[in-house]
Amino acid sequence: MADAKIRLYVEHPLGEGQTVPLDRDQAHYLFGVMRRGAGDAVLLFNGRDGEWLATVQDASKRGGVLRADNQTGPQRNPPDLWVLFAPIKKARTDFIVEKAAEMGAARILPVQTDFTNSERIRQDRLQAHAIEAAEQCGGTYVPEVADLQKLDRLLQDWPEDRKLMFCDEALAGATQALGAADSGAWAILIGPEGGFSDAERTRLNALPFAHPVSLGPRILRADTAVVAAMTVWQMAVGDWT
Amino acid sequence: MADAKIRLYVEHPLGEGQTVPLDRDQAHYLFGVMRRGAGDAVLLFNGRDGEWLATVQDASKRGGVLRADNQTGPQRNPPDLWVLFAPIKKARTDFIVEKAAEMGAARILPVQTDFTNSERIRQDRLQAHAIEAAEQCGGTYVPEVADLQKLDRLLQDWPEDRKLMFCDEALAGATQALGAADSGAWAILIGPEGGFSDAERTRLNALPFAHPVSLGPRILRADTAVVAAMTVWQMAVGDWT
Repeated sequence: MADAKIRLYVEHPLGEGQTVPLDRDQAHYLFGVMRRGAGDAVLLFNGRDGEWLATVQDASKRGGVLRADNQTGPQRNPPDLWVLFAPIKKARTDFIVEKAAEMGAARILPVQTDFTNSERIRQDRLQAHAIEAAEQCGGTYVPEVADLQKLDRLLQDWPEDRKLMFCDEALAGATQALGAADSGAWAILIGPEGGFSDAERTRLNALPFAHPVSLGPRILRADTAVVAAMTVWQMAVGDWT
Repeated sequence: MADAKIRLYVEHPLGEGQTVPLDRDQAHYLFGVMRRGAGDAVLLFNGRDGEWLATVQDASKRGGVLRADNQTGPQRNPPDLWVLFAPIKKARTDFIVEKAAEMGAARILPVQTDFTNSERIRQDRLQAHAIEAAEQCGGTYVPEVADLQKLDRLLQDWPEDRKLMFCDEALAGATQALGAADSGAWAILIGPEGGFSDAERTRLNALPFAHPVSLGPRILRADTAVVAAMTVWQMAVGDWT
């Protein structure tokens, strides 16, 4: 794996012969940390134009320029799936974002529930984790990580055609199976470590677009539940079929 | 959640009125770190006798004694599922063990493949992660974490009635769906970060007990793949149905 090409997310448009400037952080990573230099090949993606093989034209500590040579892969977007979760301890929150990006979330929305401890998140750091997940796992799409918002406000303004798969450990047994008929826009909501409050549970159960789903007989940590829930969804109505 | 009872794994038999000695590490955790003392209640499980409410009888820095008062939950064992994985970087290997225990593995077997970097593992540390996962997630069963062994040797001595679900990113599309007819003893094999070697892939595909399964169109890290694969299995032939 020593020769594996570096994959780098850039915001710049990509096309044949396109020059792509690097910012200071990217230059530091590529030339400083990874020891690449002029003439070396790098894979680029920007979340819109697929994957491109590029050549380093110019390398300095403060920046650099690459040139996109040819497209090596098409743009691949995930299904229209939002992932809502309540932030927990730092490392596990990072993990949730990484896993949601890997598993094919289109958007990641941290939400504050009645039992969420976090008052704020580092949106920029979480976004960086989503980018890194795409870089490491061969993805061409980077889900946007939204700012922290209150769950009840988000549900007030909920787009009526977006179904909500809501995973509640108190549901054990009441699983509602998803089928191919349930295609379209979706969101998955992962509860906080302390579970949902009674008020939240009542409200969620009453929502016309909510589909309660059980994740088996064991209690799962939130970071495990994200992967398990996305697997259930991807198999039933996502792009695993 | 401040009043949530501590759950502690012990090796001692549990039954009504049974006294349970604590070792030095457990005493340090319970009395030193968690500040519990004589008269306080703790939940105990030993992987065989269910969950018990116990009272601290005697607390000292070097040990202690609890008394089991009454059973608070039955013993719940997972399905007969082994999880085989190739160790990767330390933190992610810890994570794989934690997640496998949470998701209901009966046994966890680290294996050396052609592209595995690790020559050895800290079996005791990994076992401690499996115990902690059960303590934290309300489980009453702790999967044994085996010592590192070579995959090809393990396959030589493979029990012929144990099916093997093997997850290979090179399979994309060739998914073999599991059905209820596939009940019985199983193992899941998660490939190493560098994938399987050609020789391994050829051998795995030729095994009469192997079921190749795809985990969707995206490349997943090994720790993500463990949770996704166990979800697929638990839904199809495990105890999620």
